[in-house]
Amino acid sequence: MYVIPADSKRESILGHAAMEKITVQTKRKKEFVDVTRQVQDAVAKSGVSSGVCHAFVPHTTCGLTINENADPAVRVDMQAKLEEIVAEDDAYTHAEGNSDAHIKSSLLGHAVTVFVENGSLQFGAWQGIYLCEFDGPRTRQLWVKIVPG
Amino acid sequence: MYVIPADSKRESILGHAAMEKITVQTKRKKEFVDVTRQVQDAVAKSGVSSGVCHAFVPHTTCGLTINENADPAVRVDMQAKLEEIVAEDDAYTHAEGNSDAHIKSSLLGHAVTVFVENGSLQFGAWQGIYLCEFDGPRTRQLWVKIVPG
Amino acid sequence: MYVIPADSKRESILGHAAMEKITVQTKRKKEFVDVTRQVQDAVAKSGVSSGVCHAFVPHTTCGLTINENADPAVRVDMQAKLEEIVAEDDAYTHAEGNSDAHIKSSLLGHAVTVFVENGSLQFGAWQGIYLCEFDGPRTRQLWVKIVPG
Repeated sequence: MYVIPADSKRESILGHAAMEKITVQTKRKKEFVDVTRQVQDAVAKSGVSSGVCHAFVPHTTCGLTINENADPAVRVDMQAKLEEIVAEDDAYTHAEGNSDAHIKSSLLGHAVTVFVENGSLQFGAWQGIYLCEFDGPRTRQLWVKIVPG
Repeated sequence: MYVIPADSKRESILGHAAMEKITVQTKRKKEFVDVTRQVQDAVAKSGVSSGVCHAFVPHTTCGLTINENADPAVRVDMQAKLEEIVAEDDAYTHAEGNSDAHIKSSLLGHAVTVFVENGSLQFGAWQGIYLCEFDGPRTRQLWVKIVPG
Repeated sequence: MYVIPADSKRESILGHAAMEKITVQTKRKKEFVDVTRQVQDAVAKSGVSSGVCHAFVPHTTCGLTINENADPAVRVDMQAKLEEIVAEDDAYTHAEGNSDAHIKSSLLGHAVTVFVENGSLQFGAWQGIYLCEFDGPRTRQLWVKIVPG
């Protein structure tokens, strides 16, 4: 039995879980890596059955997106179009030569949000989570946190 | 009266609410549908007065965005520019012929986050939530979940 | 001591905190303003040590993004490329003449999500939060809310 002191903060009532840190090794300069299973594993590990799962990449030259998990041609088309919109070789001022990767990352975003019910990520039939590498190959981090609710 | 057992998980303390599932029928191949009212209705139904509302589309050829709710010309301009950036008719490899819709969806994103105070979505004066159809007409799902806090 | 009545809603158990409202004065028509410190201040003020921080702009002609906080040339390149993708001067129908700002805002998005551990925003080494002004100079609002978890 546990009786909550009147001045407790929410955290002392609820406890909390540190974010899960997942390592993703990319293998090419540009590629979309399916990380759906790794995020689902983090949900299972959290023990949360209903809530909101946030995934986040602590990088500025890769992004996260949700897209088609079936025909890989969709990812080929997406990468080609992104290259057309933000060419790797352009008159950039940033000396490291990877400005295109920074811009593509901001266009896709650094985080995705997916609902959790009955301990499982809730997707549409064709959705998966992709880490979008624009300046690899690199060892990337993928951080995951699940808020119960 | 209710006394919390010491080993309760947060969920058993707080309870939880399943996500709300809303059906949106789009009527054209490409259109932006204002879904602000439907999301607000889900907030009201949740009974949460203060928290964070997440909306999510379980699809890969439509997206969600927040934009101007007054002059419809803004949406006309946005659709035209997106078409210019990611043309529907291009040399795509995906056989279904809707690669442009997949790419546009990832550029806008599949989820939006809006704060809730006093039971109401907190917007700026000109903001509304739009479901952005890029491969309609279709019957779409819009999922909503509100995290109290 | 405090014993929770059986029919309490989560909010009455947990209490809640209103969102923090921060004012950001932009100085140019287009600029990226580093707001990382202001968001961190809101986290400190919330007293939450572990959770998820959401930042949101209640506007339709500015956005929020996470990107490189070191070499300012990255931001120069990003602004130039966004201008190339969505030119300010184009054949738009919206009479106010700022359609490009609306479109750029939706491409970057109106919110960012960052994890909180030990009372601090958790970033990668090179990440900062930027308010992206596309139709300034204006007095902008930046809203922040932290969900414990």
